[in-house]
Amino acid sequence: MATATTPVAEVCAQAKRAARTLAQLDTATKDSALHAIADALAERSGEICAANERDMEAGRSADIGSALLDRLMLDEARVRSIADAVRDIAALPDPVGEVIGGQRLANGLQVRKVRVPLGVIAVVYEARPNVTIDAAALCVKSGNAIVLRGSATAEHSNAALAQIAAAAASSAGLPDGAISLVAGGGRAELAELATQTESVDLIIPRGGEGLKQALETVATVPVIYAASGNCHVYVDAGADEAKALAIAMNAKTQRPGVCNAAETLLVHADIAPSFIPKVFEDLAQAGVEIRADGRALALARAGGVANGSDPGPTSAPAISRASEEDWATEYLDLTLAVGVVDSVAEAIEHIARYGSGHSEAIVTRDLAAARAFQAGVDAACVYVNASTRFTDGGEFGMGAEIGNSTQKLHARGPIGLRELCTMKYLIEGEGHVRT
Amino acid sequence: MATATTPVAEVCAQAKRAARTLAQLDTATKDSALHAIADALAERSGEICAANERDMEAGRSADIGSALLDRLMLDEARVRSIADAVRDIAALPDPVGEVIGGQRLANGLQVRKVRVPLGVIAVVYEARPNVTIDAAALCVKSGNAIVLRGSATAEHSNAALAQIAAAAASSAGLPDGAISLVAGGGRAELAELATQTESVDLIIPRGGEGLKQALETVATVPVIYAASGNCHVYVDAGADEAKALAIAMNAKTQRPGVCNAAETLLVHADIAPSFIPKVFEDLAQAGVEIRADGRALALARAGGVANGSDPGPTSAPAISRASEEDWATEYLDLTLAVGVVDSVAEAIEHIARYGSGHSEAIVTRDLAAARAFQAGVDAACVYVNASTRFTDGGEFGMGAEIGNSTQKLHARGPIGLRELCTMKYLIEGEGHVRT
Repeated sequence: MATATTPVAEVCAQAKRAARTLAQLDTATKDSALHAIADALAERSGEICAANERDMEAGRSADIGSALLDRLMLDEARVRSIADAVRDIAALPDPVGEVIGGQRLANGLQVRKVRVPLGVIAVVYEARPNVTIDAAALCVKSGNAIVLRGSATAEHSNAALAQIAAAAASSAGLPDGAISLVAGGGRAELAELATQTESVDLIIPRGGEGLKQALETVATVPVIYAASGNCHVYVDAGADEAKALAIAMNAKTQRPGVCNAAETLLVHADIAPSFIPKVFEDLAQAGVEIRADGRALALARAGGVANGSDPGPTSAPAISRASEEDWATEYLDLTLAVGVVDSVAEAIEHIARYGSGHSEAIVTRDLAAARAFQAGVDAACVYVNASTRFTDGGEFGMGAEIGNSTQKLHARGPIGLRELCTMKYLIEGEGHVRT
Repeated sequence: MATATTPVAEVCAQAKRAARTLAQLDTATKDSALHAIADALAERSGEICAANERDMEAGRSADIGSALLDRLMLDEARVRSIADAVRDIAALPDPVGEVIGGQRLANGLQVRKVRVPLGVIAVVYEARPNVTIDAAALCVKSGNAIVLRGSATAEHSNAALAQIAAAAASSAGLPDGAISLVAGGGRAELAELATQTESVDLIIPRGGEGLKQALETVATVPVIYAASGNCHVYVDAGADEAKALAIAMNAKTQRPGVCNAAETLLVHADIAPSFIPKVFEDLAQAGVEIRADGRALALARAGGVANGSDPGPTSAPAISRASEEDWATEYLDLTLAVGVVDSVAEAIEHIARYGSGHSEAIVTRDLAAARAFQAGVDAACVYVNASTRFTDGGEFGMGAEIGNSTQKLHARGPIGLRELCTMKYLIEGEGHVRT
């Protein structure tokens, strides 16, 4: 494997050479490489945990906070589950070679549209070291070379994981350069990686808006942003209140730090007088801080769950008045913006204005409202009577994902093995010329 | 329609508003708008030709050359054929709403993957004014708003065409902003258009490498480059010489100025002594200038079709020694680079080094060679025993195309109606929450 000091351009050029070989490997070779990687991770987990401990110590010294430390932490069990995930990816169908279209043209030319690997995929990610292996395994399975660029926080963990995976892949017959890690968490290295148009076919940033903005201005390589989502749950006039409560609570609280968690709850004015006090109670019990618009706030007060503009006592929900900024914020935390709207059209309008095109849900019993919402909301995933939390490659039966795309080109929603591929047309004739 | 002086950002914002309505129009409304556009073009062809005459005069004064003038020229017949093309697009199947996947998940959630419009598509193009209408019609049919940006050379023609199309679309019930033209051929306007990330979903440049490079450094909006192609024909050892001749000649001469024309001919050493003299003769008769490598040149001399390093007399082909630059050049003209290789692997290697990933052809009778070539060549279209000239949306049964993509993301090869769309997942549950 390229060492930590190999220049970015050289790492990418080697990845490109590897990609040409990888693209033509049969499924068995790729799968046995994946099993070799899983075995090596399990065998060398002590080494991985020791490297991780160095990052953890540095993190504790730098006081990065318990949430980040928990994301960073690796132990035997976590390494085992990383290895298991690699075996799961090996068990998925090979996307390469699938014939996804084709026909015999009137002139007799036979056309096949076949799925092929993209080539070299660069993945830029933040703290979680497991991404190193998840992303590498997805790229191996889909016949792509991968260039990883993790964060400085997980430097030693990522280096150990990538080195072990690359060595195992190499010993199982994969070309050198199939899996590489570029060191250096600086913006200069990021810019260098994002401009390797000769060798890198796609760059996938996994991180927040800061990373997105850093890339947007410099990237010349095609980018798929696996960005966070500003997701909404809209409770329609005649919704089943129990289902609406369950969906709103699940979308907000089941795992608040992920991109498919809800950030705003919109409630139809007809159901709001009854629904708002109930949902505020439940949110408060779950420790959710509420940023409500004027109407929601008034209804909460009328329902006795908010007393004035100050946060109430500990048992009552912490409620404050939502600012314009709240509607646009992805809290990724136990905070929820709540607004009252007068129609499904107004809910759609609100989502068009503030949503990030990730996952949006309506809770309704009305067929016309469901149709209008699904047609009118422009997002990767539009739910009727289900939580936004289902937007996930695993849940959708795609096996695994490298992220969730909120952009519209190439991949929208979960980025799985198929989305890591392109296609080519194979055309066969018998001396055909165009007239 | 926005006037020529409306700022780019405002034009794009209006297009975005229009796109939300367009996305939900039924097929009949879009088709009748397309027929209204076709009718208006036919009725007002005098006006269009008069506007075109102003561009032609300016072009003649500026001495832009006969090829460019021919591309620019509109007459009654050409306007009629532009209108006919619009009717052809109306007759194509509507790509919007097509269910392209779906399943019922184990938990009972019903998932549909449905094709939907991208939103706002910007098309940047050079001289040909017919692109104004072709591109607009494809966008209307696929439910997208279009922002056109033509060249200064065709300013008056484009303005007349866009204005007539926009007015007809509007009178047929399409929202204002469905079809817009931004004036100003300057790089500043191009950069402004290419950075409207809030409103523009995709920018498609149709032009040469200069346009591509100009965009690459400034674009923050996703781009699909409909660039020219450096296409190859490789004649394998045991190829049928008559078919190889026909394919090489067709790929080079049938329409040399287009992106799927061949720019380099590679010939296997075993067949070269017999094939090179023949193909050089035919190329000479077709007025093709040849840039040959040392081996091809020697064989041509041995075969009596080249006498020394100078171009021969008028009846003999103009042959010169190929430079390194020739292999990388897309002549888009009656010029062909010719090289001799020792194997199909060497041909694949040459194409990997110099090809632009557009269209590549092998002429062979050998099944293993055909398989190796199709697997090893990384291009949008890989042909066996057929001319590269078939790479075309029309030829492929896609009806029409807005260009040919040589990039790997989202669209590769012809960009037709489907490629102007994205998809969304529609998920329906009965109160489903994630556990």
